[in-house]
Amino acid sequence: MTDGFSFQIASRDAQARRGTLSTPHGSVQTPAFMAVATFGAVRGVSADDLGKLGAQILLSNTYHLHERPGEALVQKMGGLHGFIGWKGPWLTDSGGFQVTSLGDRVKLNEEGVSFSSPLDGRKRMLTPESVIAIQEALGPDIAMVLDECRPHGEGTKSTETVSDKPSAQAAMERTLRWAERSQAARKRSDQAVFGIVQGGAHTDLRRRSAQDTASMGFDGYAHGGLGLGESAQERSALTAEANALLPEEAPRYLMGIGKPMDILDGIAAGVDLFDCVVPTRNARHGSLFTSQGLLVVRNASFKEDDSAIDPECDCPTCSQHSRAYLRHLFHVNEALGARLASLHNLRFYYRIMEGARKAIETGGFDSYRDDMAKRLTEKLV
Amino acid sequence: MTDGFSFQIASRDAQARRGTLSTPHGSVQTPAFMAVATFGAVRGVSADDLGKLGAQILLSNTYHLHERPGEALVQKMGGLHGFIGWKGPWLTDSGGFQVTSLGDRVKLNEEGVSFSSPLDGRKRMLTPESVIAIQEALGPDIAMVLDECRPHGEGTKSTETVSDKPSAQAAMERTLRWAERSQAARKRSDQAVFGIVQGGAHTDLRRRSAQDTASMGFDGYAHGGLGLGESAQERSALTAEANALLPEEAPRYLMGIGKPMDILDGIAAGVDLFDCVVPTRNARHGSLFTSQGLLVVRNASFKEDDSAIDPECDCPTCSQHSRAYLRHLFHVNEALGARLASLHNLRFYYRIMEGARKAIETGGFDSYRDDMAKRLTEKLV
Repeated sequence: MTDGFSFQIASRDAQARRGTLSTPHGSVQTPAFMAVATFGAVRGVSADDLGKLGAQILLSNTYHLHERPGEALVQKMGGLHGFIGWKGPWLTDSGGFQVTSLGDRVKLNEEGVSFSSPLDGRKRMLTPESVIAIQEALGPDIAMVLDECRPHGEGTKSTETVSDKPSAQAAMERTLRWAERSQAARKRSDQAVFGIVQGGAHTDLRRRSAQDTASMGFDGYAHGGLGLGESAQERSALTAEANALLPEEAPRYLMGIGKPMDILDGIAAGVDLFDCVVPTRNARHGSLFTSQGLLVVRNASFKEDDSAIDPECDCPTCSQHSRAYLRHLFHVNEALGARLASLHNLRFYYRIMEGARKAIETGGFDSYRDDMAKRLTEKLV
Repeated sequence: MTDGFSFQIASRDAQARRGTLSTPHGSVQTPAFMAVATFGAVRGVSADDLGKLGAQILLSNTYHLHERPGEALVQKMGGLHGFIGWKGPWLTDSGGFQVTSLGDRVKLNEEGVSFSSPLDGRKRMLTPESVIAIQEALGPDIAMVLDECRPHGEGTKSTETVSDKPSAQAAMERTLRWAERSQAARKRSDQAVFGIVQGGAHTDLRRRSAQDTASMGFDGYAHGGLGLGESAQERSALTAEANALLPEEAPRYLMGIGKPMDILDGIAAGVDLFDCVVPTRNARHGSLFTSQGLLVVRNASFKEDDSAIDPECDCPTCSQHSRAYLRHLFHVNEALGARLASLHNLRFYYRIMEGARKAIETGGFDSYRDDMAKRLTEKLV
């Protein structure tokens, strides 16, 4: 195990796990949600704000930071912990998913991912080795390996649709080879690296990927390439199948997932870490999560509503402002609206995780999940 | 004097005054700066933030709130104090200046100001009476009369240039007639109303305006139509001349002014209240006030600068983030940059006022002003 890094599971409730992830910059109570600080900042929300909302660990994007301001500058300023206000644990993704989303600009081969930068048109390349080197410069507590991520279902932007199994298998196998190169490229003994399970929506591929990735002895394991077309039920099954083959005492991370119920499903399937832009992106569009269902704050029905966004919420927005005021801010395009909504949605996510942790401890996770499922399908109008 | 409203001067230093303005929603130590919450929010900054930065009183714009969400809604939600998170004192402007800036859309006559709304094209009209009624619905602690505001100098957008004295005189005389109508229209006994001195850049007109406005017995007096072409020296002289004719025991407000040195000049001329969008507007453009001079945060020289924006500042931005990080946020257009810059610039303004109040108390205002003048003319590159 990497220096300063450990994972202890304190209690279980069926497949759900309640653990503590220790890192060189502090510990994380799991299951945990990681807010996404794309360019080293969660849109309009500071590290100080995040700490007050209940954040324990943040995620930033290797690809974005590599482009601007560049890992050399971040390293010179003391790494992510020195450059940005957040002194607690950081995780960075590998950039593979972001690069793949550049579409026509990208070429994949065995060496790595080549692309022309949307910023300046320059040719760039990410390889398993360079992605480790970049992250060792950025200095997060947890780095991710470069993986090949293929869309596998309807509802994605790709022209590929369900179950092109040979290409899913090829991507999974390449991800395994890249994972070995990543392990070999590591120079820092104080930075954890997580391997990534791929295999599209195919149980057998996911199982093989989990087994072979686990055999490489990573500090933790992620499920990649999900949320790209499969149903929620399929995702739960794929995640649970792979988890059964991953070492029990290593943390598991479901990348880029998702909405509150997706996260609760992931916890039920044995996942410990999550990240997603949904709380902040939805907030900027005026879509707010509440304990009574989804609230679209621009709606006319909230025009004279002086109640809090969520009467059960303890966030700064709910304790100080009304639905009517938030609606007004969105209608006049005042930046404070997006910020107050982001604070609320982030706190909603952190509260969901707090509730999940408590429920696992007391063996009541299933009923917690059922209760949230009922609440979250409501729509406040 | 209006119910719950009083003004006590505790000490003087030449013309500068150190006072306490009491309102139904709390007291304000003067000289004081009012941040501008145009649509009921200071761009990206919440009432809670403002309180922590040292705000005592906020200003909102009658015209903007009249358009959206409308004074009827604000009134229904408990007025500005109920609708917005800020429970302390509020002042609203009269909307006259904003409407005048609509240019071709505006027609002025003795009745009032007619204009077609840039929002929906509908014809609207503000009269001295309607402006009082709107503000009585909005419910600020201090309301302003409708005035006619004429640009009088070079450097304004108007085609009129320096010293069209007949039109300045006509506007000043109309403002006096409107002030009388405003006084007659008042229905609330718990809302202070300030009269406005006009007269362009003409000392004799300003003097007559001050005398005649004072004779109407307002709760306080503002200098309007300045910052529209006159030099800083002219402005100081015009303000001081008018102040000499206003009642000593009424608060004086220099509307829409200005940069830090403009404010210190105003204090020296005997002004108690100020407002301006400069701190927040400049912040959004990356222009930051510091005790060492102006800092343009995008500049390459700050790329690897790990010092605080202003090492003498106690704001959340300076205590937690570096110039290099702020520069990065501006370069990637991250909304957090504008917010952190706004928090800093607002705190800089509040600190300037704290320093001025202390300096007046100890009879050292002149040297405080001289010291700040030296610091503020520097440019950090």
